[in-house]
Amino acid sequence: MRFSTLLTHLGEVSDATPRDPAGDPELSGAAALDRAGAGQLAFLESGNALAQALAATAAAAVLIPLDDELQRQASERGLAWVALKDPRLAFAEALDLLHPRPVLPPGVHPTAVVDPHARIGEGVYLGAHVVVGAGSVLGDGCVLHPGVVIYDDVELGEGCEVHANAVLHPGSRLGRRCVVHSNAVIGSEGFGFVPTANGWRKMPQTGLVVLEDEVEVGCGSTIDRPSVGETRIGAGSKIDNLVHIGHGVVTGRGCALAAQVGIAGGAVLGDGVILAGQVGVANKAVIGDRAIASSKSGIHGEVAAGEVVSGYPAIPNRLWLRCSAAFNKLPEMARTLRRLSSDGS
Amino acid sequence: MRFSTLLTHLGEVSDATPRDPAGDPELSGAAALDRAGAGQLAFLESGNALAQALAATAAAAVLIPLDDELQRQASERGLAWVALKDPRLAFAEALDLLHPRPVLPPGVHPTAVVDPHARIGEGVYLGAHVVVGAGSVLGDGCVLHPGVVIYDDVELGEGCEVHANAVLHPGSRLGRRCVVHSNAVIGSEGFGFVPTANGWRKMPQTGLVVLEDEVEVGCGSTIDRPSVGETRIGAGSKIDNLVHIGHGVVTGRGCALAAQVGIAGGAVLGDGVILAGQVGVANKAVIGDRAIASSKSGIHGEVAAGEVVSGYPAIPNRLWLRCSAAFNKLPEMARTLRRLSSDGS
Amino acid sequence: MRFSTLLTHLGEVSDATPRDPAGDPELSGAAALDRAGAGQLAFLESGNALAQALAATAAAAVLIPLDDELQRQASERGLAWVALKDPRLAFAEALDLLHPRPVLPPGVHPTAVVDPHARIGEGVYLGAHVVVGAGSVLGDGCVLHPGVVIYDDVELGEGCEVHANAVLHPGSRLGRRCVVHSNAVIGSEGFGFVPTANGWRKMPQTGLVVLEDEVEVGCGSTIDRPSVGETRIGAGSKIDNLVHIGHGVVTGRGCALAAQVGIAGGAVLGDGVILAGQVGVANKAVIGDRAIASSKSGIHGEVAAGEVVSGYPAIPNRLWLRCSAAFNKLPEMARTLRRLSSDGS
Repeated sequence: MRFSTLLTHLGEVSDATPRDPAGDPELSGAAALDRAGAGQLAFLESGNALAQALAATAAAAVLIPLDDELQRQASERGLAWVALKDPRLAFAEALDLLHPRPVLPPGVHPTAVVDPHARIGEGVYLGAHVVVGAGSVLGDGCVLHPGVVIYDDVELGEGCEVHANAVLHPGSRLGRRCVVHSNAVIGSEGFGFVPTANGWRKMPQTGLVVLEDEVEVGCGSTIDRPSVGETRIGAGSKIDNLVHIGHGVVTGRGCALAAQVGIAGGAVLGDGVILAGQVGVANKAVIGDRAIASSKSGIHGEVAAGEVVSGYPAIPNRLWLRCSAAFNKLPEMARTLRRLSSDGS
Repeated sequence: MRFSTLLTHLGEVSDATPRDPAGDPELSGAAALDRAGAGQLAFLESGNALAQALAATAAAAVLIPLDDELQRQASERGLAWVALKDPRLAFAEALDLLHPRPVLPPGVHPTAVVDPHARIGEGVYLGAHVVVGAGSVLGDGCVLHPGVVIYDDVELGEGCEVHANAVLHPGSRLGRRCVVHSNAVIGSEGFGFVPTANGWRKMPQTGLVVLEDEVEVGCGSTIDRPSVGETRIGAGSKIDNLVHIGHGVVTGRGCALAAQVGIAGGAVLGDGVILAGQVGVANKAVIGDRAIASSKSGIHGEVAAGEVVSGYPAIPNRLWLRCSAAFNKLPEMARTLRRLSSDGS
Repeated sequence: MRFSTLLTHLGEVSDATPRDPAGDPELSGAAALDRAGAGQLAFLESGNALAQALAATAAAAVLIPLDDELQRQASERGLAWVALKDPRLAFAEALDLLHPRPVLPPGVHPTAVVDPHARIGEGVYLGAHVVVGAGSVLGDGCVLHPGVVIYDDVELGEGCEVHANAVLHPGSRLGRRCVVHSNAVIGSEGFGFVPTANGWRKMPQTGLVVLEDEVEVGCGSTIDRPSVGETRIGAGSKIDNLVHIGHGVVTGRGCALAAQVGIAGGAVLGDGVILAGQVGVANKAVIGDRAIASSKSGIHGEVAAGEVVSGYPAIPNRLWLRCSAAFNKLPEMARTLRRLSSDGS
């Protein structure tokens, strides 16, 4: 695809966007700026450590930010370029154009096992060894890759994609265009047991898991259903690999949960909450809209909207940074303290 | 089901239990106190933050603790109620009555692949695409959901349930009524490698994994077998999702391990140990009976029976609480120290 | 197998190796020193806490280090023994001799679904319900256990073993003799989203995952492919269970990553790096050759070659040990400080 053709398809590009008037290479793919070779497209963000790589890149064309100096530099290097407000977003669009996803033709593989009481929409793809249970409903255009198991009483909205060997349990309700990655488990029994004189007695988990529209769940992640009521993930939320979400958790819209995050039962997250890798959220914690927790932090109680927290137990990030710096000086502080203490005595 | 009928089936209820003599609504289900609607049962614990919700609940009937004030309040509200020593336990029993689990009819799905040298008990259910290897033994009444893979030489006691796409490796020995949730892996090779001049050399893992009676293993959790000897999980222990248990670990009876706990090879846990979410236990650590570790703590060495520990490295919880509070004041302490130090010099 | 016969097969044994000239029991298996019974082989390392168990072991034969005192002790006990430089390595070899792994006969199970455009090498074993997609290539002697799903465009070198229900996504490239354990996922989409006014927009993940020769990936672990370029795991690296490796991560040769480690996108590890359980590595961190991180540490920025780090944020292990010790005295330090402060005022 010609660079100029690509540009006509990018939502980010308008007539006002400055671009190199001359260069129009044929593009065969895309790569990182410092790895790109002939025929490849790359992108550059302002403040990006790769900025210096612009001088050395072998890319054929670059998407760059609205920055006169970078534009000048790109022109001097003889690179085809376009300057945009959000080069990363434009790069995402370009990748879809340069590497279009293969579209699976609708159809049911002969080894798939579909209960006669399931309802399958139009244009659905069911791969080899897929199982769909009684009473389950697959919306139009759903794609289920090989080995997926849908128990009874599961509902998927239109255009959902479920990757190989993922499992959806009874009571799972997925909105439209959700993506469930390989080996994820949705709607499994919450971890609820009542202590008795004879040991742990299971609390039956009769509730639902609801994934609103365009939720994405990473490989191996698990989202449990509660004893009563529902576990709910807000529309457009994105969940990375190996994340655990306990029974009865409710998140707002557009949250992003990085790999190996764990959220205990009954916690409530607002809209746009971002939890970095390996964060833990305790039982019934409440996290306000757009709050951010840095990696490995552990959250109890409440986090106010917009706050950035770190550490365990989590405290405001700025305070934590200063406390952590002081932590490294503890042996020195202890020494000083001993000296002062013996001086004073 | 009538409330009065339900009560006759609750093990918790005796004639001595005070109850509302009049109210006997027809119940259609159950819900949390603050979400319950017409025809629904709810429960209330003493000290429960939901106590105030009793005033506002729309539930038809409630299970409440032995508390005169709450009984009076429930009567005033015109709710059907019964007072019990353990309303949570009674609620668990009630859920089983109101939402009985579907019973799968025994039988082997035509797509299941069972080795002729496997032994299958009476009344076993094998779902679609289940695989059972040579020499494996399934006790009476076992239920294997679709996609489960049982390698050769695995033994399941009577009444075990294995959820979709879980995998049991050679040498796995499950007691009676164990539950293995979706995508869990039992009996996989322990992570044992010997450093050599040519890199890591695998230590063969020839041991067994033993799950005693009524052990439950969460979705995606992994329990490894050791090079020699066994990994053993004590009877009635409950393991949440995404937990890792290394080779040669031995736990006592009735332990509860929350999500994302990791236990390294050779660690030993007593009876009734509770590890909260994301706790890590090091190689060969020893944890006494009924010890508790709060979330994210990291345990090396020994923890005495009954102790409650926190932090990393884990220390007694009360000490940790005070240390953590002081941690947040470190910058202030450092400042004071600098001032005193310069005063003194 | 006779002890003497076993010894002729151990690479570790030379004529110069001292051994007991008389004892030559028939061996039926192996066990830990303190658990071994009649007919069993055990081993002993110098400095091993089990050394005292030599006096009490019921083993028939032992592999011991080059230590005169231990040799004398073994002879006195009447044990058959051999002394070697690396008894652990010899024990690994002995286990392979005493418990040889069953070899699966080549063949394709009738329920396996292999795309006509896949290429299958000589002597390959495909278990029940295996799926192999179009354009995928399996080298000679590969073993795929039941339920494995290989998407389109995946390549496995000769002698790879993939355990039950693992999933390999498009663009996965495995070298020779790699092992992928049950329910692991290789080549899944990296967690890349671009924030927009309308929420998170997926960054297409068009890159590859490369596992070089003899890489081993544990149960339930996930290794993501990047938007462009590749995620690469160096030859001979061993990865434990439930590890997450983000898009674009590159590791050197011979790394060892323990259970529940998480490595965020773009991090770079040198050769021989060892990360203990639950370690987290941030975005684009750089870790030098043979560096070691103790369990639960969190690494940002850079770690120099050969360094041992601990804590979060990770600092040199020796400093961290002193800081952690001081942390436990924080309440006391705070008290002393208050006293001095009031004295001084």
